[in-house]
Amino acid sequence: MTGRLIIALDAMGGDLGPEIVVPGAEFAAIRHPEHHFILFGDEARIAPFLAKCPKLAGKADVRHSSVAVAMNDKPSQALRRGRGQSSMWQAIEAVKNGQAHVVVSAGNTGALMAMARFILKTIPGIARPAIAAIWPTLRSETIVLDVGANVGADAAQLVEFAVMGEAMARCLFGLERPTVGLLNIGVEEIKGLEQVKEAGRLLRDSQLPLEYCGFVEGDDIGKGTVDVVVTEGFTGNIALKAAEGTAKQLSTFLRLALRRTLLSRLGALLAFGAFNALRERMDPRKHNGGVFLGLNGIVVKSHGGTDALGFATAIDVAIEMARNELVAKIAADVAEKNRLTELPAKPLIVASA
Amino acid sequence: MTGRLIIALDAMGGDLGPEIVVPGAEFAAIRHPEHHFILFGDEARIAPFLAKCPKLAGKADVRHSSVAVAMNDKPSQALRRGRGQSSMWQAIEAVKNGQAHVVVSAGNTGALMAMARFILKTIPGIARPAIAAIWPTLRSETIVLDVGANVGADAAQLVEFAVMGEAMARCLFGLERPTVGLLNIGVEEIKGLEQVKEAGRLLRDSQLPLEYCGFVEGDDIGKGTVDVVVTEGFTGNIALKAAEGTAKQLSTFLRLALRRTLLSRLGALLAFGAFNALRERMDPRKHNGGVFLGLNGIVVKSHGGTDALGFATAIDVAIEMARNELVAKIAADVAEKNRLTELPAKPLIVASA
Repeated sequence: MTGRLIIALDAMGGDLGPEIVVPGAEFAAIRHPEHHFILFGDEARIAPFLAKCPKLAGKADVRHSSVAVAMNDKPSQALRRGRGQSSMWQAIEAVKNGQAHVVVSAGNTGALMAMARFILKTIPGIARPAIAAIWPTLRSETIVLDVGANVGADAAQLVEFAVMGEAMARCLFGLERPTVGLLNIGVEEIKGLEQVKEAGRLLRDSQLPLEYCGFVEGDDIGKGTVDVVVTEGFTGNIALKAAEGTAKQLSTFLRLALRRTLLSRLGALLAFGAFNALRERMDPRKHNGGVFLGLNGIVVKSHGGTDALGFATAIDVAIEMARNELVAKIAADVAEKNRLTELPAKPLIVASA
Repeated sequence: MTGRLIIALDAMGGDLGPEIVVPGAEFAAIRHPEHHFILFGDEARIAPFLAKCPKLAGKADVRHSSVAVAMNDKPSQALRRGRGQSSMWQAIEAVKNGQAHVVVSAGNTGALMAMARFILKTIPGIARPAIAAIWPTLRSETIVLDVGANVGADAAQLVEFAVMGEAMARCLFGLERPTVGLLNIGVEEIKGLEQVKEAGRLLRDSQLPLEYCGFVEGDDIGKGTVDVVVTEGFTGNIALKAAEGTAKQLSTFLRLALRRTLLSRLGALLAFGAFNALRERMDPRKHNGGVFLGLNGIVVKSHGGTDALGFATAIDVAIEMARNELVAKIAADVAEKNRLTELPAKPLIVASA
């Protein structure tokens, strides 16, 4: 898709709501002056931030909604309470109604997924949607899914995740044949969970136009061994957070170590540019944006605690997904997968006399 | 247990066998001159390394065995081929026969677990043994289990892992009441896998003398939120490797960043002490030693690719476990758990006339 995109933003989502969403939209508007934004949320709370963002003028409309989903609402509660009324609901509905091409929210993940599923429905042939994270690696970036939309997945669902993640990698990285691996506790075919081994067999034996590279282990994610790493949501979520925890731990250790002596402080001062480059490279704001895959519409989840710059990154991701027609790609790939994996009709057994 | 310990070493295990095991034993002998070592393996291959380790003289015996388990042997194959013959088998058997207090091997993890289970058997009341890793954290260290002995675990097994991990924390950290958390994808009680939620209920409602702190998330491991993190082996293994991958990735990025300009190189030179301190703090050789929990004997697995210093750390861990009578502690705790969780006998239902 080329031309002007309309981007629906849930202005009330995230820890700070409009305070980061509105300036985040302005950053995005500067980068992508051709697109347009619709801010869903409390007009009175949005207005003062909008007034401080002159570069959004003429590029953003506000649609008032009086209900905001809280970060700690249970999904079922948010669905009931926010039904038709909340900024989150209305922003998703704008995609459903064709008023917007994509929606971005920094709100409650569980509520966002529940509403998105309810309003947009899954693409025919997809059992369950997944959340894909963009993971910085030694080589560049890797897509990891599912990172928490579901708990548990059977072999067929893992294959669906592989197909969806591969389509996203083509959209995001511009690759023709992204490589795909299944996350496991060893690379040998005999190791691991039954459903992972079965998914491996299905992917290996399928005629799918998909570059399946076998099993990968936890440390292969950071190495960037493959472009897409497939796992079920429980393990994916824990791996993602364990890695985030380690990154924070190391940067804390580094900071403490550099403060220890006068000499190391001087060294740190001289190497300031290097540390800045490192910080930039690992900046979580530059890898922000969980993409909901498998729905009839594009929903991007920003980290709830990010700032305007981070929120703008999530908008960038949303724009890439819309420009490259993620939903159409997934729908076509899933249809192809189902055509290929459909069992041939069994021959009638003719009873011998 | 006080006094002299006898430590059985599988001299053929690991990527380099006796080349690291023998000098590793020497490092340990220098630190713990009161203890004694038995080196199991090929005498001809061990001898030249032993000759280079004068401080092991009089503190180590060699027991010849002609078979070595290969790092890529399947557990069933190693069990068959190495039956009674391999250095790994004989080292474990020494613990079984009371000739040694503890065994350390850097060999094939799957084979070591299969043999240890076969020879030592599980402690009565324990369904499945687990492997516990020592994870460096912002605060100090946390025990994480299971990191790969099993794939999947039900609620009762997770409770067993909690009891065993807590006993190990008392041995390793010298704490009276270590804190225990269950790894999950959210801290709310409604989130996550059914068996994790059920284990949470069991731990919360039990009368066990165990400081259960509820659910923890992936990033809580690196923060050191609790002393013991309990999970099943698939997720635990992937979380551990994802964190290791991230640590390697960051140190590579840091090295590259510091090489970029002359100024940053000069800075790195001045801050050399700080980087050294950081390297020391994160040195995987200082956190080496996976402890097999739930067996009638102490088995410590060293990383297969470590060096002599790393192997000596695994020996340190083994000594702590033996000194603090890990097996007896676990056996007592499991008996207590089973006493508490035993269901009261059901009253007979008297059929009414």
